[in-house]
This record gives sequence, C-alpha cells and structure tokens, in this order.
Amino acid sequence: MTVKNAFYAQSGGVTAVINASAAGVIEAARQHPDKIGKVYAGRNGIIGALTEDLIDTSEESAEDIAALRHTPSGAFGSCRYKLKSLEANRTQYERLIEVFKAHDIGYFFYNGGGDSADTCLKVSQLAETMGYPIQAIHVPKTVDNDLPITDCSPGFGSVAKYVATSIREAGFDVDSMSATSTKVFILEVMGRHAGWITAACGLAAEGEGQPPHILLFPEIDFDQPAFLARVKECVEQYGYCVIGVSEGIKNADGTFLSESGLTDAFGHAQLGGVAPTIAKLVKDELGYKYHWAVADYLQRAARHIASKVDVEQAYALGQAAVRIALEGKNAIMPAIRRLEDQPYRWDIIEAPLKDVANVEKFMPREFITEDGFHITEACRRYLSPLIQGEDVPPFKNGMPDYVRLKKISVGRKLDSFHV
Amino acid sequence: MTVKNAFYAQSGGVTAVINASAAGVIEAARQHPDKIGKVYAGRNGIIGALTEDLIDTSEESAEDIAALRHTPSGAFGSCRYKLKSLEANRTQYERLIEVFKAHDIGYFFYNGGGDSADTCLKVSQLAETMGYPIQAIHVPKTVDNDLPITDCSPGFGSVAKYVATSIREAGFDVDSMSATSTKVFILEVMGRHAGWITAACGLAAEGEGQPPHILLFPEIDFDQPAFLARVKECVEQYGYCVIGVSEGIKNADGTFLSESGLTDAFGHAQLGGVAPTIAKLVKDELGYKYHWAVADYLQRAARHIASKVDVEQAYALGQAAVRIALEGKNAIMPAIRRLEDQPYRWDIIEAPLKDVANVEKFMPREFITEDGFHITEACRRYLSPLIQGEDVPPFKNGMPDYVRLKKISVGRKLDSFHV
Repeated sequence: MTVKNAFYAQSGGVTAVINASAAGVIEAARQHPDKIGKVYAGRNGIIGALTEDLIDTSEESAEDIAALRHTPSGAFGSCRYKLKSLEANRTQYERLIEVFKAHDIGYFFYNGGGDSADTCLKVSQLAETMGYPIQAIHVPKTVDNDLPITDCSPGFGSVAKYVATSIREAGFDVDSMSATSTKVFILEVMGRHAGWITAACGLAAEGEGQPPHILLFPEIDFDQPAFLARVKECVEQYGYCVIGVSEGIKNADGTFLSESGLTDAFGHAQLGGVAPTIAKLVKDELGYKYHWAVADYLQRAARHIASKVDVEQAYALGQAAVRIALEGKNAIMPAIRRLEDQPYRWDIIEAPLKDVANVEKFMPREFITEDGFHITEACRRYLSPLIQGEDVPPFKNGMPDYVRLKKISVGRKLDSFHV
Repeated sequence: MTVKNAFYAQSGGVTAVINASAAGVIEAARQHPDKIGKVYAGRNGIIGALTEDLIDTSEESAEDIAALRHTPSGAFGSCRYKLKSLEANRTQYERLIEVFKAHDIGYFFYNGGGDSADTCLKVSQLAETMGYPIQAIHVPKTVDNDLPITDCSPGFGSVAKYVATSIREAGFDVDSMSATSTKVFILEVMGRHAGWITAACGLAAEGEGQPPHILLFPEIDFDQPAFLARVKECVEQYGYCVIGVSEGIKNADGTFLSESGLTDAFGHAQLGGVAPTIAKLVKDELGYKYHWAVADYLQRAARHIASKVDVEQAYALGQAAVRIALEGKNAIMPAIRRLEDQPYRWDIIEAPLKDVANVEKFMPREFITEDGFHITEACRRYLSPLIQGEDVPPFKNGMPDYVRLKKISVGRKLDSFHV
C-alpha cells in the first residue's frame, strides 16, 4: 500500500464535540504512517480544498491534538457551503482533483451533517466519474440529531445535557420567585425542523409537576388556545410554568411563529426569537409576569457540560472513519448502533452515504405525548443514555482551558481559485 | 442564655449559591442547641413572617441541608417585597412582633441584596422602636455585586464564571463560522444598573484579539457611531466580533436601549432584550450576519458551573451570621474583606447595616478602558479571584442532582394576615 495524504474538514454548524472527532481522525491517522502521510485540514471546510487553503496538522503537537477532544467549535474553521452537482459545476470537481493531486491526497474525511454528507458523497464519486482514486468517508456531526441510520449524531448529546441542565436550573429559580414575581419562564432552543433538542429539555422533569411543564415542538402545529389553557393550568396547579420551545415552531398554516407578526399589529417581522413572542402572548392573554432566555450558540458550544457518552462517540467515530478508509472502503459514514438502552451499549456500523445524504430524521410521533406538550417514556428511554456522564475540560484561571491550534498553512502549489 | 428560635428567609432575585448561605446558617445553628432552638424559614421571604407561613427546617435531614450547598435557587421561596417605614405601616411591624412572639423567635437572618438589607435594618430596630428583643443579621447575596463594603456579593462570582465561560465558548464557535456565516455574536447579561456581570465577560479574553471584543456597560452612555466603528474594525481585523452587553445600557438621554425604539419606526416598545436590538442595528448599518443569546435566569441559576470561591464565601457568611448573632450583636452584615489579590485571601468583617442598606456599588471608571468598550488590568485583578475553582454538584441521570426540601409548615397560632 502506498502512502497517501489525508484531507479532513469540518462543515456546517459546529458543536461541542466535533473537535473530538477531529482528534479521533488525526490520532488514528498518526498511528498508520505506513499508509497515511500527513493529515491536511481544510481551512473553513470544503472551501479550504477548493481554494487550496490547507492546514498542516502535522505541525500541531500531540498534546494540542489531544486537547481538541475537550475544545468546542471547529478548530479548522467550518463553512456553510454545498457543492453543486457534477453536471451543474464540473469546474469545482476538476479543481478538487487538481488540489488533491497536487498534495497527494488519497483520503477524504468530511465531518458534518446532512448537507455535508451530500458533499462527501459527491467527492466519493470522483473515482467513478472523474477517474481520481479517492476514499471519501463522512464523519457524522449535528446538534439537530437529524441524521438517519445512526442512533444519534455527535454533538446532540452534549446540547441535550446542556438544555436539560439549564432548564432544570432555571426551573428551580422560577419556583423560588413565583409567589411574588415571575410566573412563566421560556427557554428557546435550537432545532428548526426537528424537535430533538426541545425533547431533551423534557428530561429535566423527573416527577409530577417538575419543570419544564410544556414543550413546544416544530413537529406539532402551535395551537394557541390549547397552549394558553395549559399555561394557566400549570400556574394554578404548580404556581409557575416553565416552557421549552423550539426556534422552529410553526402555526397551522406553516408559517414560523417567530415571523408570524403575532405580537405586532403592524405586521413587522420580529427581531428574531420565538421566546419573546411566546412571552408577550402569555403576558397579553394571561397577564403573568415572565422571563425568557435564548440559548443560541451557548447551547452547542457548551463543552464545559458536555456529555461523556457524546464525547466518546464523537472520538470513536473519527477513529472509525480512518479504520474504514484503511480497509479500502469509500462513500461510507460510520454510525452508532444502539445495542441496549440501559445500561447503554453501542457499537459502530457502516452506513452507505447514499442512504444518509439529504435525509432528515424527525421525532417519531410516539415520542411526544398525546396533547403534544411533552415527551413520552419511550422518548426518555431513547434520550437518557445520550446525556450520561461528565467530561469536564481542564480549567485555568477559573475558565475552561481550550486549545487554539497554530494552523500553519501548507504551501500553495496551484493558481488561485475563486469560490 | 435562654434558648430562642431563629427565623431565616431569602429575598430578592435568587442565585446559584444563596442556598449555600442557608446551609451555613442552619448547620451553624444546629451546632448550638443550647442557644438556638429551631430555625424557622420564611416561606417566600419576609412574607412568610408576616403571614405566619413558616417552614420547620428541623424536619429536614442533615443530608438534605448539606445538599443545599450545591442546589441553586432559593429553597424556601424568595420574594420581591420591601417593608415600608415604621411610620408608614406600623401594623406590619406589630404583626412581625406578634409572629416572632408566638414562635419564640429571637434571631432574624435575612439573606438578600440592598433592598433586603433595608428590610433587615428595619427589623433590627424593633428592639429599640417597639421593645421586642431581636437580633437581626443580614446575609449578603446578589448577582449584581452592587453591595457596599463587602469585597464581593455571594452569587456574583458564579454568574461571573458562567458568563466568562459561556462567552468564551460562543467566541470559539463564532470564530469557526465567521468565514462563511455569522460574523457578530451578542450575549446579553444581567446587571441593570451596575456593569459587574458585563465586566466578567471580559475575563474570557486573555490575549490580543480574543473574544469578547466589545463590552457595553450600563455605566457608559451608548455611543452608536463609536460602537459601529469598533464592530467594523473587529470584523476586518479578526474576522468576527463578539459582544457582551448589559441589559441596562442606556442612550445619552438616559433611556434604556431596550426601550428606545431604536429599531422600530413606529416606536413600539421591543419585546425585551437589548441583544436583538443591538443585533438589528449591526445588521442594518453594517450588513453583518449575526446571532444573539439572552442568558437571563440561566446565568444566575447555573450551579453546575459555580465558582468554588463563591460557594465557600456564601457558606462562610451564613455561618458567620450565626456566630455574630450568638455574640449578641444586631444590625450587622458579615462582609468579605480582601486581604490579597493573588493568591486570593479573604476574611470576614462586620459591616453595620445602616451603611449597607440602599447603597449601590457601581463599577469604578478605572475598571473600564478609556474607549469604554472593555475592562482594564485593574478590573481583571479584582474579578479574577472571584471565579476561581470549580465546585461541581453531584450528577444523577446525567443531570445535576439538586435537592427539593420537604418544607413542612409550622402550625399556625395566629389569625391570618393579609400582605
């Protein structure tokens, strides 16, 4: 087997553990110097490949690569960029091959979600369509947990742990204040199309009356009268009401609530944020004092409260990607297979990329209670294992000590290319 | 010395460590059965005293009281309620004495901020003004860090650690995304009048160019052109810009930015949240893609990332309050005195309540850089010790395991009283 270099890049919204996958790929590759030369990371995802903007990861110390395991975000830069089809933009593919040839790249590892799986699939076809020998392996990642086949997507478990912890903590707070002050608290979480993160908020409620009391899923049309009735019921029964809401909840007509002008007589678009929209609705219709929070990037970057299971899976999938490539395979995504719920046992299987690209996995209806406002026991059985265990990063000066890599560029050999 | 019961209550906005002070008070009291009988906690602060709604803490196990040390929120319920002056509402004071007499209460421990210190001071004067022997000791607490005399206020250090950690994590995230997506990120934090929490965000930046790049303090009038120029400069120099903003920033005319109608031609009040207002301004004037987060209650309830120093001080101040009371003193607040910055050394002194009540401590101007957009080295030296050390709570089922007390009511002996 000849020695070839590898390309690795990060794509789409970053997570608390995508760098753990990077560590998995790079550390595994370093163990096979007879087969894999250097790992070149694309600066800002596939754009780094197109523009020949490569980072030489061999310049990073073993210690710094290991520290990626506890560092959130995408250390090499990510991108929101989807390759067009070969028919639509052949030039891009020719350019990729040019860059791969110039840097002797035979392995392509792409770390991302559904869109990125599509990019990886297209690259995997270069062998067939353009005669360039490459093995393209997709490393799964997405906080939205919407990738098919795999039991879960790395990044999700840590967001789930963050939102469950945060809404529990805020719930204790509101409970304290509710007698004379705030009665309703709303936490807005990510997940524009799939309600997995919203569902994870529900884990915080482990007994009757515990917050959150209401969850609003993107899969369930927003029913304003039913929602308001439920809020009132909670405040009357428990003294307060804690709500977890997906940024993507929709009215029955399919419009996003955050854009529905619900609260503005002039129909102005809101500044963003469904939480304030819901808060105002509650105030206007029921008169309760409210507070709201929008976690936004905090939730997906919160490495300080990452799920140990999530970190382990992210790392293991990075390592598996290298193993699969070294076995000569192409167009594969290593995926998590659940063997048992409790105790959670899992292994890694190989999913064909064609079955992954552009497929979204939504919450099954049976994971949502009949009234649409909470999660079922089946959902808990699924979610609970994914937030287990803590993996506290090292702290320095009272804050998590995350690594910033040197990111030394590989010398350019080609003319520039405009993306 | 005769045995008297003690009253303890929590007041104002709760924190991640106010229950640690409660544990300090109750555990210290339990060590002196010869002097202190039972500790009765007011349900929902002073309102519990007025309405004779008392919780018998002796019904709680030693284990559960110890668990208060790692449980955020106010376990006995808090309130936003300020006693009027004796002249304005003599009935209230007569009622307090009636309740104290009925339950043989000789010690009054009130755990709160500036307003609560005022309440505690008024109660301390009952001996003098109404002839009822009581010792009133105030246990400091406030995330706003705006109490005078004390080096810091319990609750602040943990919020500071939370916001510094969160904005660092979000900063790593934005850095990854900025090449093709989000360029500006805004985190809104608490502190309507004092910029201490905003300042704490600044701790995350430990080197040139590190986020946050801009802080907006309530102490500094918002200068829109200067702000926009600085955002542009950051994006051009670093590729992105991370901003920490106080909920209380004001225009030069003294109006709150969150209510200024800055972004709405019809002058409608915003739904709340200065972060979206700033975000829209950046988008409209500079065209950058943005994300924003509002931490709200998450920041002050985040016991999972509490500062160890903060927890220790909160507990120690609770214990000190009991010691001071047993020394026969009245109208005192135990306060933190800083002996050394590095390593941080502190002890507890006794502050007269009359010097504490209704006095707010603002950020000194020399803690803010000349341009008004960041913190100085002097500020770092002050803040850094307060976020040191981790005090991770126990976890169960992947989430922090916080205690819910039994909260058994003491039998009522008096007629009801309307607050």
